[in-house]
Amino acid sequence: MTRCRLRATIAALSTGGRLMLRWRVMVALGLLAAVPAAWAGEGMWTLDNLPVKTLQEKYGFTPGAAWVRHVQGAALRLAGGCSGSFVSADGLVMTNHHCANECLAQISTPQKNYMAQAFIARSEKDEVRCPEIELNQLLAITDVTAQVNAATAGKSGADFIKAQRAVIGNIENACAGKDARNLRCEVVSLYHGGRYDLYKYKRYQDVRLVFAPQQAIAFFGGDPDNFNFPRYDLDVTFLRAYEHGQPAHTPDFFKFNPAGPKAGELTFVVGNPGSTMRNYTVAQLKSLRDDRLLPLYGYLSEMRGVLWEYSRRGPEQAQQAGDELFGVDNSIKAFTGQLQTLNDPAFWAYKQKQEDALKAWVDADAKRRAEYGDPWASIARAEQVYAGLATPYRMLERGQGFDARLFQIARALVRGAIERAKPNAERLPPYRDSNLPALEQFLFSTAPVHPQFERTTLAWSLEKLRQALGVDTPIVQQVLGKQAPSALAAQLVDGSKLASIAERRKLWAGGLKAVEASHDPMIRLALKVDPAARAVRKQVEDEVDAPLRKASELIARAQFARLGTSIYPDATFTLRLSYGQVKGWDEHGKPVPPFTHFSGLYQRATGSDPFKLPADWINARGKLDLRTPFDFVTTNDIIGGNSGSPVINRQGEVVGLIFDGNIHSLGGAFWYDARLNRAVAVDSAALIEAIRTVYGDQKLAAELVNGKR
Amino acid sequence: MTRCRLRATIAALSTGGRLMLRWRVMVALGLLAAVPAAWAGEGMWTLDNLPVKTLQEKYGFTPGAAWVRHVQGAALRLAGGCSGSFVSADGLVMTNHHCANECLAQISTPQKNYMAQAFIARSEKDEVRCPEIELNQLLAITDVTAQVNAATAGKSGADFIKAQRAVIGNIENACAGKDARNLRCEVVSLYHGGRYDLYKYKRYQDVRLVFAPQQAIAFFGGDPDNFNFPRYDLDVTFLRAYEHGQPAHTPDFFKFNPAGPKAGELTFVVGNPGSTMRNYTVAQLKSLRDDRLLPLYGYLSEMRGVLWEYSRRGPEQAQQAGDELFGVDNSIKAFTGQLQTLNDPAFWAYKQKQEDALKAWVDADAKRRAEYGDPWASIARAEQVYAGLATPYRMLERGQGFDARLFQIARALVRGAIERAKPNAERLPPYRDSNLPALEQFLFSTAPVHPQFERTTLAWSLEKLRQALGVDTPIVQQVLGKQAPSALAAQLVDGSKLASIAERRKLWAGGLKAVEASHDPMIRLALKVDPAARAVRKQVEDEVDAPLRKASELIARAQFARLGTSIYPDATFTLRLSYGQVKGWDEHGKPVPPFTHFSGLYQRATGSDPFKLPADWINARGKLDLRTPFDFVTTNDIIGGNSGSPVINRQGEVVGLIFDGNIHSLGGAFWYDARLNRAVAVDSAALIEAIRTVYGDQKLAAELVNGKR
Repeated sequence: MTRCRLRATIAALSTGGRLMLRWRVMVALGLLAAVPAAWAGEGMWTLDNLPVKTLQEKYGFTPGAAWVRHVQGAALRLAGGCSGSFVSADGLVMTNHHCANECLAQISTPQKNYMAQAFIARSEKDEVRCPEIELNQLLAITDVTAQVNAATAGKSGADFIKAQRAVIGNIENACAGKDARNLRCEVVSLYHGGRYDLYKYKRYQDVRLVFAPQQAIAFFGGDPDNFNFPRYDLDVTFLRAYEHGQPAHTPDFFKFNPAGPKAGELTFVVGNPGSTMRNYTVAQLKSLRDDRLLPLYGYLSEMRGVLWEYSRRGPEQAQQAGDELFGVDNSIKAFTGQLQTLNDPAFWAYKQKQEDALKAWVDADAKRRAEYGDPWASIARAEQVYAGLATPYRMLERGQGFDARLFQIARALVRGAIERAKPNAERLPPYRDSNLPALEQFLFSTAPVHPQFERTTLAWSLEKLRQALGVDTPIVQQVLGKQAPSALAAQLVDGSKLASIAERRKLWAGGLKAVEASHDPMIRLALKVDPAARAVRKQVEDEVDAPLRKASELIARAQFARLGTSIYPDATFTLRLSYGQVKGWDEHGKPVPPFTHFSGLYQRATGSDPFKLPADWINARGKLDLRTPFDFVTTNDIIGGNSGSPVINRQGEVVGLIFDGNIHSLGGAFWYDARLNRAVAVDSAALIEAIRTVYGDQKLAAELVNGKR
Repeated sequence: MTRCRLRATIAALSTGGRLMLRWRVMVALGLLAAVPAAWAGEGMWTLDNLPVKTLQEKYGFTPGAAWVRHVQGAALRLAGGCSGSFVSADGLVMTNHHCANECLAQISTPQKNYMAQAFIARSEKDEVRCPEIELNQLLAITDVTAQVNAATAGKSGADFIKAQRAVIGNIENACAGKDARNLRCEVVSLYHGGRYDLYKYKRYQDVRLVFAPQQAIAFFGGDPDNFNFPRYDLDVTFLRAYEHGQPAHTPDFFKFNPAGPKAGELTFVVGNPGSTMRNYTVAQLKSLRDDRLLPLYGYLSEMRGVLWEYSRRGPEQAQQAGDELFGVDNSIKAFTGQLQTLNDPAFWAYKQKQEDALKAWVDADAKRRAEYGDPWASIARAEQVYAGLATPYRMLERGQGFDARLFQIARALVRGAIERAKPNAERLPPYRDSNLPALEQFLFSTAPVHPQFERTTLAWSLEKLRQALGVDTPIVQQVLGKQAPSALAAQLVDGSKLASIAERRKLWAGGLKAVEASHDPMIRLALKVDPAARAVRKQVEDEVDAPLRKASELIARAQFARLGTSIYPDATFTLRLSYGQVKGWDEHGKPVPPFTHFSGLYQRATGSDPFKLPADWINARGKLDLRTPFDFVTTNDIIGGNSGSPVINRQGEVVGLIFDGNIHSLGGAFWYDARLNRAVAVDSAALIEAIRTVYGDQKLAAELVNGKR
């Protein structure tokens, strides 16, 4: 679960679930009043509150109820942190290649490398199951704010956390009922606690690979071109959702438009932006920079060096580390951009001004003062507490001190055993009944464990643990004893039997008794670390999260009271719609056109990685129409988690596939600048031309164009 | 010159020359007015301006002229970035093991590892020459402020830089005369241009290894214990200066006191603190954080990962990367601490207040306004320009894009050829006649070049170059062409003949014509990069350095005018004396005693690296007096560059050897807090006991105690 953990860590830092993506979001709430005119009209809207008036005024388009229902039914979330959509009635799913990276790495063998070679399923029986992909289709949204608030009224600290966890667990449980295997129910906090909504999803866990191009063309230009434009990437993978061993019947799907969009055309992006922080207070942003981003930037930079050098040992090692290296590269680039914004005095002045305005509005009235108090001061205090807990929290609880898939498996077994013995409402969230199917999918995944790679990342992270917490800390002494990190890592990895799925099943079924009786060294380690990890987690929950949530709710309420409800919540990895248009931008006074074309791809190719074209593409050159558009940019407001989102036109047809943002989108976590921020997508014309002409997959092309097999 | 380059980069960022050390320095100049009482009395004093009055009042001690002359004569600077001292009349030199690390790595072979084994020269002929160590003994200081100011009066931008470079080149040349091989003359800017002094040194280039313990005891506790205390390190190496093939005659030396200091005793540290930034403006500190420290922190973190994983390939690779890994570890730890201070709002508020006070003093008077203007605004503008140049500057000119010793050799040959064709006064500083001996020592060094290691660091850094400057930048395209960084690196390293000293001598002697005619691929690369590197260097000099220097001079003059001259300049890697006392501190309310003892070493040993004792120490346990003090802390104000400084008592006797600072010293670059900041030293009692009992080197012990062989 190395990757999962990283992903989780990064999600918490708001690049959103999956890595590559970016964010925008409406300059929401308190910020609206003072934003430049150019910024208006953007946003990541929930589907029950679309900007109907603006759309009508600006584009002469009004999304009707049927249009919205259809969009909701065709849109998908990849539980691991991406977006996707149905693109045929037979369960065909379109998402990004980089959203299926992990699957491609997991099903690869020394004989068959799914990243290096293209994959085309010639028939249904060739479709290969992805061990850990889960698709979620949104069925319903229910407002549960009153129920949640009633349960936590008057509570604080540990009581607040406990009460909130209980009420949310109960709501989710009641929603999924006995059907947790097919339904996923999540209570989501919108507007930082201004509203709580219950999201009910249909869950697809049998997801199979239909088509994937070579990574060399999906990620052409690699890390150097990442977050840049012009761009020439075919970042697509097609999957298929199965039910009861058969392709799912999916009447709601986006029809594929093989012509692609025109410059200036109105475009919608439907997807699940992961997280934005446009409503954070100044104190929260400071804590984010100093206590979260900065240490993680150093941690990931060093990990990048380890993975890079490990990859140089040989092709097998490169394959083992490839997916993680990609993710780390991507995060580092994103963090670098975020840190730039968070070191910009103009940004801080702007944030401070917004915050002061809302504070002044509260202070101007005795009733308001009584109602809202000073939540900003509460947040600053909570963040101060966090500063003292940040290092043990990220090392022990976030798992940065134990970077190995085997450890993550051991922890899930240990915690799973302890938590499942408790009533559902009292469990840690990942161990609630509603989340067990996803956890079991991870635990019993057939994804391979590479011992050499595990030894390397574990040895390295144990060193980081010792460095971060200090040699003389009891937990460090308990973990390391008299051993060097590298020796301990080798002993743990070589001695553990958790690479065996049967062994994991046995321990999972055996519960706490089996786990406690186990002599597996990785299980022993997870047992040893668990109390300290839980202790710091509890401290963070009670002394940081609880006051933060309470204070954020107060600020959200004040904002509602001041500005009304025509505003949009920060991203929460739930379904949103953003509108925009196909449009380039000015870079240092020079216009960047909105489209690239196949011809440019061949000009950019050098023959060396990451600018090396697969043979298929070199061979197809003469047959392709080189004037075909390849990638394009739009003004849609997106962020990490939107990867794999379809770009649709007003008819609800697919005209593109989001896969990135431009370099200016990196600060979009904190504010939105429509002059420069752009979403980057693959043109549907490029998709269909490549599938037909480069890969000769007429079957897939036909399914896309016809909307069925 | 990988290491040199890194060291230079780091020096520019003010950890000082050598890596491990820290800084304090008097809370100087404008800051004095508002500092807490506890901070008074500290400082890094130039020897011509000692705090005589304070010393007399506080300690009843007045350093006389003879005492000062003697101290100056016995103190040494290691040109590579450390301090040292003569400790016998026969040229015996004491410094830190980590200051001789690079020499130990360079003279190691697969058969004999000088880091893993202790080295004891049984007789004079066993003493091994260090290829790149140069010792400097300060002969004289001359105030040349008037001369420098006269030459630059009324000039700005490129003219200012050119005039200042010319006048400094001329002063240095006149000082060294025809004897540049034996004399080193440097014009130093004190008080940020408030004063210019000419420092004249005697130069020792024939320096040989006499005694070095195992790195395992010199750096016991490794990176985890680095910057921490309690500590158990024997961080010492003894060298010997030679002249004309014979041990140098050195009548000025520090007598060795085998008893060590007492708690509370007055102690002096004599050495060369590298750099402090306690007088930087707010704008400078911001630029330091965002445009210098932060990118370097990321760069070094990633490099650390590469070196760490490279070391795991095998013992030979571990040896190749060891010295550099040590340096990088150390820098990262230091930067982390510095970034903490630079993210502390209290620190910024304090700095802003000081700055505002001096500004207000200037603004309060029309004559002052006319004289000083607004140098703070000039600095802010210059730093804004730097922000746009920082990335190409560090990649191209600082060499972060070309991390390989062979490239550094190639660059020195190329630049040396171009620069030596110019009049001395017009050359870039490293190529002035006065600096050629040090350059030639590097160029013709017998230090080995490890091709696998070179390929690795060069491939990695070429990737960083491409990433930092972007694929479409002309210089990146010129360097990489159609090649991948790793392929290019292999081709450059494997095709170059510069590992041969004879080849380097030929190109050096042949000058520009030979260099331009060379087909060596590394020379061709250096020739290709040079114009772009020089262009960005010139931009930084003309548009950043020149206005910065002018503005800093104005601020320094205003500070002098306001506060008088009883203040101490920021550290400049020149000889300073600091006074203090042996004293622990309170950590979270718990007292940390000032001494550790041999007994504690054996308690801390685990048998695993970096807590693994060498066999010599395990065997000697029964013979040692375990109550012997090992390391101790003092309140002396030191910083990076002070590594290897002797701790002396009022009689001028050695009682210890500085090698580190505690964790609180890390923010000491920017301010000094006497309550917490501590210097860390080896006790002279430990040194003598270890030399006698663990290593049985009675000859060395006798030379130390008798002051002669």
